[in-house]
Amino acid sequence: MAEYHGLSEIFTTTETSLCNNLFKSSNPPFHSPTALILEISPNPFPITTKLSDLSTNFIPIIKNNCNLDNLEISDPELETFKSKFNGENNNCNVYVAGHVIVFPSYNGFFEKPGLYLDQMFVRKCYRGMRFGKMLFSAVASQAEKMGMGMVDWLVADWNEESINFYEKMGAHYIPEYRLCKLYGDQLQQYAKKSD
Amino acid sequence: MAEYHGLSEIFTTTETSLCNNLFKSSNPPFHSPTALILEISPNPFPITTKLSDLSTNFIPIIKNNCNLDNLEISDPELETFKSKFNGENNNCNVYVAGHVIVFPSYNGFFEKPGLYLDQMFVRKCYRGMRFGKMLFSAVASQAEKMGMGMVDWLVADWNEESINFYEKMGAHYIPEYRLCKLYGDQLQQYAKKSD
Repeated sequence: MAEYHGLSEIFTTTETSLCNNLFKSSNPPFHSPTALILEISPNPFPITTKLSDLSTNFIPIIKNNCNLDNLEISDPELETFKSKFNGENNNCNVYVAGHVIVFPSYNGFFEKPGLYLDQMFVRKCYRGMRFGKMLFSAVASQAEKMGMGMVDWLVADWNEESINFYEKMGAHYIPEYRLCKLYGDQLQQYAKKSD
Repeated sequence: MAEYHGLSEIFTTTETSLCNNLFKSSNPPFHSPTALILEISPNPFPITTKLSDLSTNFIPIIKNNCNLDNLEISDPELETFKSKFNGENNNCNVYVAGHVIVFPSYNGFFEKPGLYLDQMFVRKCYRGMRFGKMLFSAVASQAEKMGMGMVDWLVADWNEESINFYEKMGAHYIPEYRLCKLYGDQLQQYAKKSD
């Protein structure tokens, strides 16, 4: 994904850093960076007792009504992406098809805070099957549920397909803003200036 | 500021919403939306006992070494912007000159989280006095102190002066991203799609 965006030179993420930032927060889900994992299975998803132990801030969205039978899905990395969703019952055959990362955001012009969508990714063999839409609506629905007023994200200006998709879903494309990012040595140097 | 960005039609902020979002969080400063207020005074700032009661996450940055004597400052709204910094001792003459709003952010490509700078504002009569630099370096320094790896913000593409300022300070200007924002009726409609 970093490669896709020409950002592999700034890529410093490790498995440990991802794990610490996303899954070890003391905050409840969606109050700090949170990943939504999109998992699919040919079988209905089991409602395990484990789910009831989860934070009431997030109830897994289980959709058994998506008929994918007519789609030709051929996942070359099926075993690699086998999920631990139902680890005790390996018959379940649950696979990871994508993910989205969000964190709470704030914009001084708006009455209510929002969610900032940092990453949305659907694995190549699962594209064109409305999974992106499903992830987006899960995020929008979560924002609504938390009394938030917006969902923000960035898109590359050359990515016409995505821009069309976003505009069709009712998102406002704001052409005038550009991202600035201070990091690495430059951040350290600038931080010293306040000493 | 919303007017300046042509965004007055989306402006829904109220005094109550600002207060709730910025000053009533149960999180310590910088772990949720946080405002840094830039205050100036012709007298040295008092170190009141109150300061020691504040969260250890943030120690007010007191700079008594900025000589502004040679600057012609004429603040037409001086009384309106009189600060409550030292409410018990009104001789202090502390005035609000600007502010910055930040909240914690996360980028999946980076090992460490960061701060997202939502708003920076220096009142007109205090511009060109390096206060913007002071606010930015306070934010960079805070990010460093919290073990963060970046500071992100948006700039309007027509704002050449700011872009030059940001590039001079070592920020990376990333021209390809555009902001998308889902809010209002569109957010509600899209949220329903996940039902």
